[in-house]
Amino acid sequence: MDLRELLSEFKNDNIDIEEALDKLKKLPYEDLGYANIDHHRQIRNGYPEVIYCEGKNDEQIIGIIEKMYEKGSNILGTRCRLETYEKIKSIYDNCEYDKTCKILKINNHPIENKGKGKILVVTGGTSDIPVADEVYHTAKFLGNDVGRIYDVGVAGIHRLLYRTEELQSARVIVVVAGMEGALPSVVGGLVDVPVIAVPTSVGYGANFNGLSALLTMLNSCASGISVVNIDNGFGAGYLASMINKLD
Amino acid sequence: MDLRELLSEFKNDNIDIEEALDKLKKLPYEDLGYANIDHHRQIRNGYPEVIYCEGKNDEQIIGIIEKMYEKGSNILGTRCRLETYEKIKSIYDNCEYDKTCKILKINNHPIENKGKGKILVVTGGTSDIPVADEVYHTAKFLGNDVGRIYDVGVAGIHRLLYRTEELQSARVIVVVAGMEGALPSVVGGLVDVPVIAVPTSVGYGANFNGLSALLTMLNSCASGISVVNIDNGFGAGYLASMINKLD
Amino acid sequence: MDLRELLSEFKNDNIDIEEALDKLKKLPYEDLGYANIDHHRQIRNGYPEVIYCEGKNDEQIIGIIEKMYEKGSNILGTRCRLETYEKIKSIYDNCEYDKTCKILKINNHPIENKGKGKILVVTGGTSDIPVADEVYHTAKFLGNDVGRIYDVGVAGIHRLLYRTEELQSARVIVVVAGMEGALPSVVGGLVDVPVIAVPTSVGYGANFNGLSALLTMLNSCASGISVVNIDNGFGAGYLASMINKLD
Amino acid sequence: MDLRELLSEFKNDNIDIEEALDKLKKLPYEDLGYANIDHHRQIRNGYPEVIYCEGKNDEQIIGIIEKMYEKGSNILGTRCRLETYEKIKSIYDNCEYDKTCKILKINNHPIENKGKGKILVVTGGTSDIPVADEVYHTAKFLGNDVGRIYDVGVAGIHRLLYRTEELQSARVIVVVAGMEGALPSVVGGLVDVPVIAVPTSVGYGANFNGLSALLTMLNSCASGISVVNIDNGFGAGYLASMINKLD
Amino acid sequence: MDLRELLSEFKNDNIDIEEALDKLKKLPYEDLGYANIDHHRQIRNGYPEVIYCEGKNDEQIIGIIEKMYEKGSNILGTRCRLETYEKIKSIYDNCEYDKTCKILKINNHPIENKGKGKILVVTGGTSDIPVADEVYHTAKFLGNDVGRIYDVGVAGIHRLLYRTEELQSARVIVVVAGMEGALPSVVGGLVDVPVIAVPTSVGYGANFNGLSALLTMLNSCASGISVVNIDNGFGAGYLASMINKLD
Amino acid sequence: MDLRELLSEFKNDNIDIEEALDKLKKLPYEDLGYANIDHHRQIRNGYPEVIYCEGKNDEQIIGIIEKMYEKGSNILGTRCRLETYEKIKSIYDNCEYDKTCKILKINNHPIENKGKGKILVVTGGTSDIPVADEVYHTAKFLGNDVGRIYDVGVAGIHRLLYRTEELQSARVIVVVAGMEGALPSVVGGLVDVPVIAVPTSVGYGANFNGLSALLTMLNSCASGISVVNIDNGFGAGYLASMINKLD
Amino acid sequence: MDLRELLSEFKNDNIDIEEALDKLKKLPYEDLGYANIDHHRQIRNGYPEVIYCEGKNDEQIIGIIEKMYEKGSNILGTRCRLETYEKIKSIYDNCEYDKTCKILKINNHPIENKGKGKILVVTGGTSDIPVADEVYHTAKFLGNDVGRIYDVGVAGIHRLLYRTEELQSARVIVVVAGMEGALPSVVGGLVDVPVIAVPTSVGYGANFNGLSALLTMLNSCASGISVVNIDNGFGAGYLASMINKLD
Amino acid sequence: MDLRELLSEFKNDNIDIEEALDKLKKLPYEDLGYANIDHHRQIRNGYPEVIYCEGKNDEQIIGIIEKMYEKGSNILGTRCRLETYEKIKSIYDNCEYDKTCKILKINNHPIENKGKGKILVVTGGTSDIPVADEVYHTAKFLGNDVGRIYDVGVAGIHRLLYRTEELQSARVIVVVAGMEGALPSVVGGLVDVPVIAVPTSVGYGANFNGLSALLTMLNSCASGISVVNIDNGFGAGYLASMINKLD
Repeated sequence: MDLRELLSEFKNDNIDIEEALDKLKKLPYEDLGYANIDHHRQIRNGYPEVIYCEGKNDEQIIGIIEKMYEKGSNILGTRCRLETYEKIKSIYDNCEYDKTCKILKINNHPIENKGKGKILVVTGGTSDIPVADEVYHTAKFLGNDVGRIYDVGVAGIHRLLYRTEELQSARVIVVVAGMEGALPSVVGGLVDVPVIAVPTSVGYGANFNGLSALLTMLNSCASGISVVNIDNGFGAGYLASMINKLD
Repeated sequence: MDLRELLSEFKNDNIDIEEALDKLKKLPYEDLGYANIDHHRQIRNGYPEVIYCEGKNDEQIIGIIEKMYEKGSNILGTRCRLETYEKIKSIYDNCEYDKTCKILKINNHPIENKGKGKILVVTGGTSDIPVADEVYHTAKFLGNDVGRIYDVGVAGIHRLLYRTEELQSARVIVVVAGMEGALPSVVGGLVDVPVIAVPTSVGYGANFNGLSALLTMLNSCASGISVVNIDNGFGAGYLASMINKLD
Repeated sequence: MDLRELLSEFKNDNIDIEEALDKLKKLPYEDLGYANIDHHRQIRNGYPEVIYCEGKNDEQIIGIIEKMYEKGSNILGTRCRLETYEKIKSIYDNCEYDKTCKILKINNHPIENKGKGKILVVTGGTSDIPVADEVYHTAKFLGNDVGRIYDVGVAGIHRLLYRTEELQSARVIVVVAGMEGALPSVVGGLVDVPVIAVPTSVGYGANFNGLSALLTMLNSCASGISVVNIDNGFGAGYLASMINKLD
Repeated sequence: MDLRELLSEFKNDNIDIEEALDKLKKLPYEDLGYANIDHHRQIRNGYPEVIYCEGKNDEQIIGIIEKMYEKGSNILGTRCRLETYEKIKSIYDNCEYDKTCKILKINNHPIENKGKGKILVVTGGTSDIPVADEVYHTAKFLGNDVGRIYDVGVAGIHRLLYRTEELQSARVIVVVAGMEGALPSVVGGLVDVPVIAVPTSVGYGANFNGLSALLTMLNSCASGISVVNIDNGFGAGYLASMINKLD
Repeated sequence: MDLRELLSEFKNDNIDIEEALDKLKKLPYEDLGYANIDHHRQIRNGYPEVIYCEGKNDEQIIGIIEKMYEKGSNILGTRCRLETYEKIKSIYDNCEYDKTCKILKINNHPIENKGKGKILVVTGGTSDIPVADEVYHTAKFLGNDVGRIYDVGVAGIHRLLYRTEELQSARVIVVVAGMEGALPSVVGGLVDVPVIAVPTSVGYGANFNGLSALLTMLNSCASGISVVNIDNGFGAGYLASMINKLD
Repeated sequence: MDLRELLSEFKNDNIDIEEALDKLKKLPYEDLGYANIDHHRQIRNGYPEVIYCEGKNDEQIIGIIEKMYEKGSNILGTRCRLETYEKIKSIYDNCEYDKTCKILKINNHPIENKGKGKILVVTGGTSDIPVADEVYHTAKFLGNDVGRIYDVGVAGIHRLLYRTEELQSARVIVVVAGMEGALPSVVGGLVDVPVIAVPTSVGYGANFNGLSALLTMLNSCASGISVVNIDNGFGAGYLASMINKLD
Repeated sequence: MDLRELLSEFKNDNIDIEEALDKLKKLPYEDLGYANIDHHRQIRNGYPEVIYCEGKNDEQIIGIIEKMYEKGSNILGTRCRLETYEKIKSIYDNCEYDKTCKILKINNHPIENKGKGKILVVTGGTSDIPVADEVYHTAKFLGNDVGRIYDVGVAGIHRLLYRTEELQSARVIVVVAGMEGALPSVVGGLVDVPVIAVPTSVGYGANFNGLSALLTMLNSCASGISVVNIDNGFGAGYLASMINKLD
Repeated sequence: MDLRELLSEFKNDNIDIEEALDKLKKLPYEDLGYANIDHHRQIRNGYPEVIYCEGKNDEQIIGIIEKMYEKGSNILGTRCRLETYEKIKSIYDNCEYDKTCKILKINNHPIENKGKGKILVVTGGTSDIPVADEVYHTAKFLGNDVGRIYDVGVAGIHRLLYRTEELQSARVIVVVAGMEGALPSVVGGLVDVPVIAVPTSVGYGANFNGLSALLTMLNSCASGISVVNIDNGFGAGYLASMINKLD
């Protein structure tokens, strides 16, 4: 049964209002065979659509975009290969792409500012930038004012302290760091707002692809810090945005 | 030089205002030899004092409480041994203790409500309660309205869905779960607010003291989830409170 | 001594019946030098032949197929490279190949339906499909009625609940999931039949190539769940089939 | 709304049959504060009640038993401390306890045989017996004919082969093994029925509390094998029973 | 000081016999700058020269071979790249190469048989052959009678038992196995001679590049088993040879 | 059918010689319910009986000893608790015990020397002695001439070199070492006989209960080294004995 | 505010000397957007500039070099790709490159000798040379007298002992070793100066990319040893230089 | 042969000077059966004697002390149990003990100051003190001027910066930290002297007994840092002392 049918059924008294409400909650997932897209999501939570491109082939990605595009949603694609972008660009001309962090955007309507304050993205080193830019673009796309403070790692602590005032002006801070991953602890001690820590897989040797930074962040002595998965820039940007729109 | 001296020096033009401000930032840490207590913290971030009791002997804990007590702070002690509590109780009569989660409280003045909404603490099973109660008491102590939904693990999903409305009424949710640690993902899919996931060391076999639940939570497909350390109820309660007071 | 000789010996009273039976059990393994093929297996357990192609070179695979083909067996090749398939296709025209899950089939006679009920294959996300399709094709090849419910991960639990009736109609369920791996627990709580959990190496960061999903599944609170190796679609399909033919 | 109210509402046409059914599914969980007991479970899946005692204090366990006892259920308690048993025994005189595997039973009515065939529990060594007996008692309690073949580890393979006929007479086999954990592979090669492998934490050195046996079992070359958590005798017995009642 | 000088000094009573003996022990290492070659080794332990080629570039390998060749040694190169072999072949015409196990041989004089009995190399599956052949060629090169029994994994135990007599005729057995790695335990229970277990990195998923097989072998219940590093065919062949020449 | 019956059957021509031989191989395992004892073992391989006491309760251990004692075997118990020894001593007066390495011996007849040469047990430090003594007593019990060189760790290399001659006189060497576990590599470079390396769990911090020493030994550059499980003194002593009796 | 402005402000009495000093400490970090370069570092610690090239693209590296070059610094680039070097060479003609260890140098003025004694770099095998040469070139660049002793691994201990006198002449020793990683312990026992241990990722199997060597070195029984990250030749060279310039 | 004999032999021309020198190097290790004590060490490296008490029983410890005491050495015992100390105290009255860090000292003559500068011991938190005090007492015992800065963890970075001047006055710094282990990186960025990092096993959850802090320290971005084993306060104090006496 589709949405139209369901509503007619209700109008004709074939089903009552409770049942209709109950069905409404479960109905609007379209089954493409390979991916359930949730069109109600935009209505329910006020956010545009996101596709995680890794592990999907080009046909699958384009199929999903088509469905989203029909609804007029703004669309964000993360971890999108350059070749995939080029195919999509040839179909949807308003498509944009950031090579560093592999983010693809299709803005079908202007982004509405939803944040109550400023989100700040901070990195330890130059090599953390691809993940940090995934945070940045995600949070921008979700309607936030976002600032960046890059390359202020703990081994040269004055570079960070010099920016204390700026740090203290944020409502949420995302700290992206690889290697020893100690930056979130130091930032967490300087501010009194939530700090989201993103370990990166940057480093070598006993870094074990980000495990070292992940453990450091989980063991932080500073209060107000929580951690997302290694290299999960999108997750951090999304959560920062969710916190920033709380009123 | 102590605070009094510093201010006289400034009054007498021996040091100028900039220098005074600079020194002010660094000054108020008293050195007890074994622990630096930060009395300014209460002023700076509006929070009472907290002692992490594990790894400190009774003399050290009582010494720290004495200093805090002199300032009239409310005091929270986490992971406090029963014997330690009993010693403290004999000195400070207004001291309270919760045996399940090993939290000690001394309220020298009424707790002021600072939260903008409700914090909800959710657990997967009965065995997660000690950690969940650490979250609960921490968040209460920090001035929040806190609710509890316990024993609603994913293997009987209807128990959780039955409480959907209650979940959706919260401003921040803390989900505490051991064993497979899947609960935060399901909760995260039902709500549109930040979810703080706390893995517990509950379980056996390939649980590896909470590592299994920790990895599950870090790998969650649901957006808006972040993770704190295994069994870190205090950290989750503190962060939830920090988010809940954002305006 | 080969089979013919053995039987003559017995006919001529050179060996007695007991000895003959004893030798019969050990005899029918042909030694190709690099792989022992068990032709009796089809007779013993009513199943066709299977080759695990990974780690074997093209010459070895074709050599094994030749021996099997002579016996008229149906043949299933798992983890078969596209190039290998193309070589085999040029020899055996009735050879089929599924690019997604790298399965090769040669059906020398129609598949006989042996299952007592329906096997259902369920996945958390789009990226789990290659493994899930290995389950699907294996179980089909072994003579079962097999259904598929894909992309119903726990972060959007209604998509799964919407299919509850279908889930409850199965005799065995195989749940394939990467990332947090929580789906088997939820499915296990909805049904009362055996659930075989297959962790996949899909994901990134602290997923550690499927280790996270594997641990989650081993630690499931739901009863009736067991686990096979990471990405082992064939093993799950084979076991599901074995359970489904029990009478 | 409780069950009485719901049914009256339906009788009075205040809610219709669909809604009533929907609510019925979610309703019957009684909330004890610390544990949701599912009385419908017995009706839904034909099984008696089970309590996992580890991580629950005596008061919690006795509270849960009281509720179950009122419904007249047979009750199984796993990982029950001796002291807890003694307290329960003083209240419920028909309570029995097995010291080796720490299982407690209260049989309020005779166990009904539900299995279609025989379940066999096999162990590698003497030290695996506590876990194997947990399998044995669980499967017996759930209404199965259960046999035991103990101490037939792979380092003396003839002890196992000597029992081949007995192995081949089973409908489901549970193999319990610590140390190298190789027994399930050998058993799996001798039979054509599902084999459930239970790694135990028995061993020392590079055994890592059962991790070695667990990995061995997951990597088994034999088909038809799946694995449950380390030392999870109850889970294996429950799953074996679930498979054995399939018709 | 070189050997000649040293002996003259001794003849001339410039140094005494003790000192001469002492110096003799330390002297004969030629320093090529990048690798110390031990020409005395052949004399001291009766063995030809071996080069581990991995991690050395072609120039280094050829430099080492030149020095060895001058002494007339037989030369064995392990883990030798095909390209490297081709370069060497163009210089030393009596050079042979085995593509499967990447072993290079230069026999400057006939191999003298030194073994007291037979060495047997046994593998679990087809994919273990490259490592098993490294064992085989190493032991042959070191002057042993070596037999091979391949593809007799534990999941089809009769294939192995069928060869029991052959196994019991060996003086040393090397068992090479990946996946679950259980074969050495079973072999160890059938024979009464030393068994050297070689885990291979063959497998997938929770195999973790041979770690699973390694742990299984270390935890073996069978007596008389010891283990070498993952994929270390050379080490196993060398040790087997060392044991086999004991008289 | 027991041994007596079987032989009568054969005498009476009810079964022929082949069948009798086949049955003989499988028969002589007595089933005590909790442990299969192999009385033929002594005949087959010329060794006395061994009990691994860990994980067995006193009743089980005494039951096994009774059966062995009846046959007149010499008996070795490893990892035997002091209390267990005391119980056994009160029954079998000729029982001896070594407190350091927890080995129990009952010698019902003199030990026959079987070794062809000398076994040497070498340790890195004082703390490795309990494991080294398990090696020593095991090898002595199995009829070998055994020597000990203790506390010659690599950080003071001269202590080891000082004993080079002694080392070079051995036929097999067992090297026991914890902490960095480097000793077997150095010994292996000094001698030309098999070296069995036993990692111990001695150490702290990043030693991880012997894992560090285990990995070191597996990665040894010296040829002729193989490794047994962490703390497995018995296994090393048994293997050394097996090699030492080769002729 | 830049440095010039700050000093004028101070000259004009707009800020006082204290403030000027305070600002001076924080100022001289130029923000290139992607990397903060610290020009003061050379003044503060008397060292030239270093760029860690991994994880930076060519544009970023060249941008950083430009800024450094303007100041006239000597420049060291570690882990520099050949292609990157070639681009830089086309701009800065005095640029040199070492292919083995991927080090790039631009010496704008002669290196001043700062070391008080000699630094010695020691390796276990030929394959450790790339990391050892990174140590060597780093220490040379930082103004030290550096010697090399290569290929003296513990499995042939006389090669090392032969050089004891040379080892004892050094003021700091850096020991680079892969595989079992035992060399630093032996060296540490021969000398009485600080030993810096560098584990390398050279090896295979249970080496786990250098983890084995790392653990060995951390667990060393020899005193005076400390460890840097796997393959971190630069870090070891820098630290050795820092120790060597102490007076 | 003992030292006296050796020298007479040389005086009498029975052995020449070279041989005498050679033997001198190897001779002075007394063999107590369980521990080789190196009396020459004090002469060779100018340091007193140290006993690592863990893993040695009281008899062994006292036996070693007796031998050392006879030579008049100052004696340091690390990880000494309180009970052991009490036994020793009853024999050697000049014995002192520090309960916090379990260090025992017997000073038979005044400690001679050997350090060229000051060693500073810094800790992150109160719980790191036992390890830090082991560093402190070790360095004092070895003749150094040692300072302590405790409880200056990175989450309150001003507490550390406030002591910058003091940090910069040290010649060697030992930083002891558990939990996230980030302190050495920050200290390393503030100073220009060697920093020895000591991870402690303090913390909980994903700390994994110090592994988290260990990895953090190995991955430090700051130059001039090296790491010793978890909780290895003695090793750090010894190395710091060795660096501090360099001239």
